Amino acid sequence: MPDQSGLEIPHGFRFAGVHCGIKPSAPDLALIVADAPCVAAGVYTQNLVRAACIDWNRSITPCRNLRAVVVNSGNANACTGRQGERDNASMAEMAARAIAADGSADPRAILVLSTGVIGRPMPMERLAAGISAAHERLAGTFAGFEEAAAAIMTTDHSRKTVSRVLETGAGRFRIAAMAKGAGMIGPNMATMLAVIVTDFPLSPDDADACLRHAADRSFNRISVEGHTSTNDAALLLAPPGHRPEADRAGFREALAAACLELARMIPADGEGATHLIHVVVRGAGSDSAADRVARTIALSNLVKTAVAGADPNWGRIVSAAGYAGVAFDPREVSLTLNGIRLFERGEPLPFDAVRVSAAIRASHETMIELVLGGGAGSSEHFSSDLTADYVRINADYTT
Amino acid sequence: MPDQSGLEIPHGFRFAGVHCGIKPSAPDLALIVADAPCVAAGVYTQNLVRAACIDWNRSITPCRNLRAVVVNSGNANACTGRQGERDNASMAEMAARAIAADGSADPRAILVLSTGVIGRPMPMERLAAGISAAHERLAGTFAGFEEAAAAIMTTDHSRKTVSRVLETGAGRFRIAAMAKGAGMIGPNMATMLAVIVTDFPLSPDDADACLRHAADRSFNRISVEGHTSTNDAALLLAPPGHRPEADRAGFREALAAACLELARMIPADGEGATHLIHVVVRGAGSDSAADRVARTIALSNLVKTAVAGADPNWGRIVSAAGYAGVAFDPREVSLTLNGIRLFERGEPLPFDAVRVSAAIRASHETMIELVLGGGAGSSEHFSSDLTADYVRINADYTT
Repeated sequence: MPDQSGLEIPHGFRFAGVHCGIKPSAPDLALIVADAPCVAAGVYTQNLVRAACIDWNRSITPCRNLRAVVVNSGNANACTGRQGERDNASMAEMAARAIAADGSADPRAILVLSTGVIGRPMPMERLAAGISAAHERLAGTFAGFEEAAAAIMTTDHSRKTVSRVLETGAGRFRIAAMAKGAGMIGPNMATMLAVIVTDFPLSPDDADACLRHAADRSFNRISVEGHTSTNDAALLLAPPGHRPEADRAGFREALAAACLELARMIPADGEGATHLIHVVVRGAGSDSAADRVARTIALSNLVKTAVAGADPNWGRIVSAAGYAGVAFDPREVSLTLNGIRLFERGEPLPFDAVRVSAAIRASHETMIELVLGGGAGSSEHFSSDLTADYVRINADYTT
Repeated sequence: MPDQSGLEIPHGFRFAGVHCGIKPSAPDLALIVADAPCVAAGVYTQNLVRAACIDWNRSITPCRNLRAVVVNSGNANACTGRQGERDNASMAEMAARAIAADGSADPRAILVLSTGVIGRPMPMERLAAGISAAHERLAGTFAGFEEAAAAIMTTDHSRKTVSRVLETGAGRFRIAAMAKGAGMIGPNMATMLAVIVTDFPLSPDDADACLRHAADRSFNRISVEGHTSTNDAALLLAPPGHRPEADRAGFREALAAACLELARMIPADGEGATHLIHVVVRGAGSDSAADRVARTIALSNLVKTAVAGADPNWGRIVSAAGYAGVAFDPREVSLTLNGIRLFERGEPLPFDAVRVSAAIRASHETMIELVLGGGAGSSEHFSSDLTADYVRINADYTT
């Protein structure tokens, strides 16, 4: 069902978002329900300290009997001990009861996502009321999808949703994806919350493989401050089935493209950010070496503050590469900033600092391209600049 | 020669600091001269991208024929290519000529330290004039030592100097140490500039071993933002000789204590910092595992902003431990913040947020104690909190 926004919502899913009182006033509970049992895959945070929902979901996905995803924002239900585990199971039970009034739904057909402050008890009565209210509002529409996307936000400034349409010989399929995330974004597997729904039929194993392929090229290449969260997860929901390999390859690439578009929105909306920093590294010995250098540059507070101040302090970029733990010859290194070459094979080039500074100011995206040498390895990473507003947002998050 | 400050200056060295015009007005050139050829050892940055002075010094130390150390602030002479190497050698030659008017001093008896902006050509005429002027002012006094310590500062608010006196059967020996550093401080070997002089006699190998022992327990346990610099170095100068093992052990511990006191001053004076963050990790499987967890916590921007805001957001501390790459069981973890227990064996404890916040505000040092389990490994790390002023200082450093 296309709408004026251009976002097409896959058939077979309904969505709702409500305010249940975890946060003072903003929407804080979303429900995503599959009309029939569906396939689900997930990728999760690699933090050893994990929220209750992460262990719950990991024990379920990949699966083929998923009925719903319940998401709350405002409370991470992490570091909450055994009570947190009980509360998480209760959320799944409440959602299962809501979607099957006859009580026939299995709580283990429900995935749970939580995001917000760590270490606080979950307000279970509010959650119960919220799940009921959300169930009443479920709709398979663009409006329902956007409502759910709004309810998973924490410090995000705006909803993060994207869609893709895939035309195949067997018909037209849709991917719609929502994400949240603006802080506590670190460069490790699955660094935010995302829920992706599609009407392209998949087996659980294919769903899992497609999601990992996409996450490696998107969610694993972004950071805000590099703090790997306790709660990060990306979920893919799809109807069960099996399409020819050509169609599946098309789906895999469409999913990866949708996830990359969604992932870039996160550092672009990074807490306090005024620039998206896009680091491209080429000429490395391997893709993984290039990746390590790109993320070290993207995570350097000194690079991030220089971009915030439109300061062409390129020595910070080259020196960050030098401590990434990757072998290279500094005499082979060249650096380009927003298309302007500043450093060529180990020698600084004269440049007009006012012009480079103006180029940084003029664009929301700052493009850093570093060539390490003659190798074939390349990668890219996205992060935010670091501003005084980031500090203000994070200095009094819980108080 | 004790003075009213209590700082005793070792015999056998003279010091000077002058303004030569690398910086607009502050002192920017220091000279430290040994009255007779002395032993020198050094520890250096592990960044692959190194200033010219680092390669120069590494090729010289440890040695027994050192005559002088010349230090400039305001220009790092890093990423300056072959011209930077020539300029560094010229600095050593100019210092050698200055200290031996008859031209007999070997440039390779001179160590060079530079700190400041990366990638700019060195103003060699100003440096030449500065080295001559500093040579005229050399004095083996507390005032000369403090003058040199002032000339090596960049964004430091205050001079960083400490001293220790060692009483042995063979007499009284002195250690005096100066350091600079407030930003670009990363957790790797030798993360700032320091020059330590002593009149305790040492062989080159003993000097090297004592300095590495001290650096591992001090300079390698501090960070401001974790960006390993291109220029970091700590040097130890001592008269040649050999003392009994008991005296050497006493010296080794006195040196380590002096370096730890000096090292703590760096994050305490971190750019924009309002708190020194002191992280102690115990109960780890090994000291190196504890070290990794301690520095991951100390480097988390989310921990650093929470401390700046006196926000008792302890979930950020526990979750930072979880992505340190060290195996532990979250159910065994306990956390104490400024003496107040907040998390006990995986369960959150009720606490008065206002009281904890007040405790953070009341002390310049924020003490984070994390017990991971029952292991014997422990370590500590020091860093700064992250404030809006840090961002302001670094957003327009070169412009």
